[in-house]
Amino acid sequence: MVALTLQTVAARPALAQRKQQRVQARRSLLVRAQATATAAPPAKGEIKDKNAELAINAIRFLSIDGVNKANSGHPGLPMGCAPMSYVLWKDFMTVDPKAPKWANRDRFVLSAGHGSMLNYSLLHLMGYNSVQIEDLKQFRQWGSKCPGHPENFLTEGVEVTTGPLGQGIANAVGLAAAEAHLAARFNKPDAKLVDHYTYAIMGDGCNMEGISAEAASLAGHWGLGKLICLYDDNRISIDGHTEISFTEDVCARYEAQGWHVQHVKDGNHDLEGLRAAIAAAKAETGRPSLIKVSTLIGYGSPNKADTHDVHGAPLGAAETAATREQLNWPYGEFEVPKEAYAEFAKSAERGAAAHKAWEEVHAAYKAKYPEEYAEYESITTGKLPANWAEKLPKFTSEDKGLATRLHSQTMLNALAPNLPGLIGGSADLAPSNMTLMKMFGDFQKDSPEERNLRFGVREHAMGAICNGIALHSPGFVPYCATFFIFSDYMRNPMRMSALSEAGVLYVMTHDSIGLGEDGPTHQPVEHLASFRIMPNMLTMRPGDGNETAGCYYAAVQNSMSQNPKGIKRPSTLVFSRQGMPNMDTTSIEATMKGAYTVHGAEHAKPDCILIGTGSELVMAVDAAKKLESEGKKVRVVSMPCWELFEEQSQEYKDSVLLPEVTGRVSVEAGVTFGWEKWVGQKGKSIGINEFGASAPGPLLYEKYGITVDAVVEAAKQSMAA
Amino acid sequence: MVALTLQTVAARPALAQRKQQRVQARRSLLVRAQATATAAPPAKGEIKDKNAELAINAIRFLSIDGVNKANSGHPGLPMGCAPMSYVLWKDFMTVDPKAPKWANRDRFVLSAGHGSMLNYSLLHLMGYNSVQIEDLKQFRQWGSKCPGHPENFLTEGVEVTTGPLGQGIANAVGLAAAEAHLAARFNKPDAKLVDHYTYAIMGDGCNMEGISAEAASLAGHWGLGKLICLYDDNRISIDGHTEISFTEDVCARYEAQGWHVQHVKDGNHDLEGLRAAIAAAKAETGRPSLIKVSTLIGYGSPNKADTHDVHGAPLGAAETAATREQLNWPYGEFEVPKEAYAEFAKSAERGAAAHKAWEEVHAAYKAKYPEEYAEYESITTGKLPANWAEKLPKFTSEDKGLATRLHSQTMLNALAPNLPGLIGGSADLAPSNMTLMKMFGDFQKDSPEERNLRFGVREHAMGAICNGIALHSPGFVPYCATFFIFSDYMRNPMRMSALSEAGVLYVMTHDSIGLGEDGPTHQPVEHLASFRIMPNMLTMRPGDGNETAGCYYAAVQNSMSQNPKGIKRPSTLVFSRQGMPNMDTTSIEATMKGAYTVHGAEHAKPDCILIGTGSELVMAVDAAKKLESEGKKVRVVSMPCWELFEEQSQEYKDSVLLPEVTGRVSVEAGVTFGWEKWVGQKGKSIGINEFGASAPGPLLYEKYGITVDAVVEAAKQSMAA
Repeated sequence: MVALTLQTVAARPALAQRKQQRVQARRSLLVRAQATATAAPPAKGEIKDKNAELAINAIRFLSIDGVNKANSGHPGLPMGCAPMSYVLWKDFMTVDPKAPKWANRDRFVLSAGHGSMLNYSLLHLMGYNSVQIEDLKQFRQWGSKCPGHPENFLTEGVEVTTGPLGQGIANAVGLAAAEAHLAARFNKPDAKLVDHYTYAIMGDGCNMEGISAEAASLAGHWGLGKLICLYDDNRISIDGHTEISFTEDVCARYEAQGWHVQHVKDGNHDLEGLRAAIAAAKAETGRPSLIKVSTLIGYGSPNKADTHDVHGAPLGAAETAATREQLNWPYGEFEVPKEAYAEFAKSAERGAAAHKAWEEVHAAYKAKYPEEYAEYESITTGKLPANWAEKLPKFTSEDKGLATRLHSQTMLNALAPNLPGLIGGSADLAPSNMTLMKMFGDFQKDSPEERNLRFGVREHAMGAICNGIALHSPGFVPYCATFFIFSDYMRNPMRMSALSEAGVLYVMTHDSIGLGEDGPTHQPVEHLASFRIMPNMLTMRPGDGNETAGCYYAAVQNSMSQNPKGIKRPSTLVFSRQGMPNMDTTSIEATMKGAYTVHGAEHAKPDCILIGTGSELVMAVDAAKKLESEGKKVRVVSMPCWELFEEQSQEYKDSVLLPEVTGRVSVEAGVTFGWEKWVGQKGKSIGINEFGASAPGPLLYEKYGITVDAVVEAAKQSMAA
Repeated sequence: MVALTLQTVAARPALAQRKQQRVQARRSLLVRAQATATAAPPAKGEIKDKNAELAINAIRFLSIDGVNKANSGHPGLPMGCAPMSYVLWKDFMTVDPKAPKWANRDRFVLSAGHGSMLNYSLLHLMGYNSVQIEDLKQFRQWGSKCPGHPENFLTEGVEVTTGPLGQGIANAVGLAAAEAHLAARFNKPDAKLVDHYTYAIMGDGCNMEGISAEAASLAGHWGLGKLICLYDDNRISIDGHTEISFTEDVCARYEAQGWHVQHVKDGNHDLEGLRAAIAAAKAETGRPSLIKVSTLIGYGSPNKADTHDVHGAPLGAAETAATREQLNWPYGEFEVPKEAYAEFAKSAERGAAAHKAWEEVHAAYKAKYPEEYAEYESITTGKLPANWAEKLPKFTSEDKGLATRLHSQTMLNALAPNLPGLIGGSADLAPSNMTLMKMFGDFQKDSPEERNLRFGVREHAMGAICNGIALHSPGFVPYCATFFIFSDYMRNPMRMSALSEAGVLYVMTHDSIGLGEDGPTHQPVEHLASFRIMPNMLTMRPGDGNETAGCYYAAVQNSMSQNPKGIKRPSTLVFSRQGMPNMDTTSIEATMKGAYTVHGAEHAKPDCILIGTGSELVMAVDAAKKLESEGKKVRVVSMPCWELFEEQSQEYKDSVLLPEVTGRVSVEAGVTFGWEKWVGQKGKSIGINEFGASAPGPLLYEKYGITVDAVVEAAKQSMAA
């Protein structure tokens, strides 16, 4: 290749000058860095409790060995966080490793998910069956229980899936909110059925992400006193020292957001300080707690500690040997001294005893409070009540046509009374998204038993909090709402719902240019397609009241794993701002098949098939009537959900989209990308492949050519092709 | 429809109890709300300066009338923010309405974009030709210069496109960073060519969004002393009083993030206080400034002020009349007293004089510092230097195969010396994204003349800041980088780049399951398709070194409007973690056509066409060779960019994808959604339509069936179909 001549370039006067300035800049940075570095805890020191030290180093070396064997991973965080993790898990975490799903267990979230070996080491040392020593040796390998980042659906004992920074801390807010809700809703003076803590470990990266600020603000507002976050302050990020991009006062920021804040200055050795801080955090019941714990990343590694080299790469043989030396660790690869196991065994015993005691409370509660218990059981087991859907209404063409966002509110209010786990709200758009459950009040600091959540304008945290709620108990059906366009603010949590099998319902209103005057910044165009391509996410766009009921029916079923795959699936429910008529041929049952015939079913061999979704379904029907007036035989297919249709038998699919009929047109106010699949080579797709504009909705449909006439014309072309 | 029996439901004991709790909850909320409401400034009061009062009320009534006429929009914010806007625009903003693009103008960003009538009213009163009284009457209508939310590409005087909350304040950070950079890079002791302020108005919604926390943290870290944000503290959000979801101490949070913070308690009347605060903010040169201005939303409306009813709906005739009464406004609809115009005329004159004075500095600078001026001119006019691309290297199969992320770094370093506007960096992944320009240092508080930006782990703000930089001066080519998967954290700013014609380069590495061990939380699957469907966004995935050079060439050209549409287009450049060989048949020129033949061009009538992109291109070539060994004639097409290919002539497209050849296979390590378009009814697509897993990359390709054998088998099926 042609060699680059950077030297020549740098030699130009202007650049030479810059180079000098750069050197000065670097120097001044270095000075600041050192200034901060002096605040770092000592790289060596003594832990008096020798068994504690053994247990802490066991975490470190299991992590080092796992990463080395995989030749991939992040040893730095586990080595630095081993002391705080030891104290937390040995003296505070109340879990029963032999019953990992015990409803009242404490929850632990490793928000800094890249340090996954820390989580796996802890689960192994605690005696979880899910992580044997052999599993640790399979870290990051195909089929392993120990993947690169913690995945709740693979490894018992892992509560949520983390890795994308900031998601975990927001999930933890959801877990703590779920606990506060269930405790307030079900506990009795004589029976404390729900009473556990949520602990999280987060890093600098989590605190730089905006989602953590959103989640922290809500946690402070809600006063989640049983949420305790340990902030691993190691001052190192991938680009180097945090001085280069992160110099805010994190503790002061959390205080401003209503948190109780403490700082443990020597997180490498001060076990008593860690114990005292966590105890004080538990004692603070009105505010969530942040404990800033200053540590050294890669503690024990003589040449890599406190550098970003230890963040995301194996230590390697030589440095591992040097680390064994420095930490006086005579044990072999993956070898754990029995004293280390014994330390955590005490905690496991404590947890098992607590579980046993709770079972008695549980039995007494079940006997004494059968009505409340029925709801509690549904939420904690995921069994839907027999009558959960009985209030879903049916519509005929006689019923007033409405926007599907209004039908959506009807469905939420029809489901809420019989669906104990339904809880949710909007990102400050409740009056537009129509998401209030009218028979309930607001979930607030002084009314956590209520079921309407007020997320504020925090879409990103909203999605992640709903994931936390969903993964707290299998019977929760959390929903959250915003304008469809703002799914762009919460796309990662929506993906995490799909990946981690969290059955969240995403209520997305104002679903097209049909919203009109707000203009292109608010008009989704590519969004329907963008969720149809997301694995394990159901994307639904109903065309009237019955289809809205059907979409909710399917969404709730899938949130409870009632589908061919037998896993929880989230749904993106897409609703219109504008109204549309109710049809006589739509139904809940048919909607759940994903696509079906709503018009012209009598034609065994129609001349063409028109496919519509949502607010454009009526357009397809009107086009059909126009074509029929010209003597054509036309079938109209409503396709509220591609994914559900794809799961039907080939026979059914062929009975809806007759293979021999090549005259096909799709009409949908979104990008046409992907519709080739359904309309075929000779088919046409009416849609919008550019940004919208600010004007009244009906006019926009005309201007962008999404009209009955356009569908008719396209049908003629397709039939002639 | 079946009536809902909420009453019956509510009558159940458990729910009755809840209802009571809810009432208590509401009451306690109300109490808190009132407690805060007392802190609100008076709803009535006197402004001694009568001309000022006229100008302020002119803003209010133009906004009221515009929203009423459109019967759509948000009058509340303009009515509350009129006083601060008047003070800012009359006494501080230095702009020349007759030269809206003057390079050294102050920038104004209405981050709370829904209050757009405020922005339009100000532009009109200041005398911008872009907003005549007739334009105000066309608010929110088709073809209007006054769309629902401010759009920079439609209305001269509007700097950035806002509406999605929080974007604007992050854009403002980008604008201020651009000013700091240009000033440090070009100013001379005897010639201050760059010296302006960036002002923004933000609301509660902006402050609830995480992106604003990310942007504020960076602005504080960078010490952007010429960024001044007015926070409209009106305590009302769409769901009601901010008490229900937003109770953090915003001022304390900004202080923690390194800002200079002030509070003007009566933003409705205290013009002197507003003047003093903005003056003090200008005097503070080392830190960005937040001025919390307490106002009444909908000030002057006797029945709707201080309620969310006035936020997003027209006042209507009756309430407008009552407001005219309360504010003693005798003028008719869209009628502006000459005294009001006169107030702003003073500011326009001041700006014109400043512009004139600057032109002299400009001329002197041009004469005295020709070398620096050449770079300055390129950045401020958008004219690329003649030699901008001359250092882009060429590769042959002799050159070592590399990951395209490494080629990407080569291109950035080849372009940087000759592309004055190239500036950018990564969200704390520089060593993985390979985005450092080696001849430059870090843009930091004490070295803003440098061109490597350290965004920290703040993807959302990063994108919006780059939009601000791009829209500051037409010759900036900002780039920003992260793992492709984390585009999910910045999807809205990426869309805003496309919508607002900001030519940002998004450098997205680790583009498939090929990244391996990090697992499904880090493996993009649906992402390529998700950007191909985004209007005005180019999505590029090169297959070797030459194609990487070609993609950068096309991306820079498009960032400078060099395309058939003649508008700036951003690019999403997608690069691999893993290596791939260089090919002799690839080239910059061919890459810029979007798709072309890299193998088997000699066959006029091949038996089949294999289409590959990125790291799978070599797989297509290997499959072709295997098929050829079995006597088949095979063409391989590389398709690095769908959008560019779609813009080629039908003749060219048919010459690449021969219409008569129906045996076609696409291979790409992403969802197959959309590929039907290129492979047709008889074609096959090899890809991955589920989430990946944690394991070594090569093994994942096998496990998910993305292999040479799979391509060969699919080709045989397709040819037989």
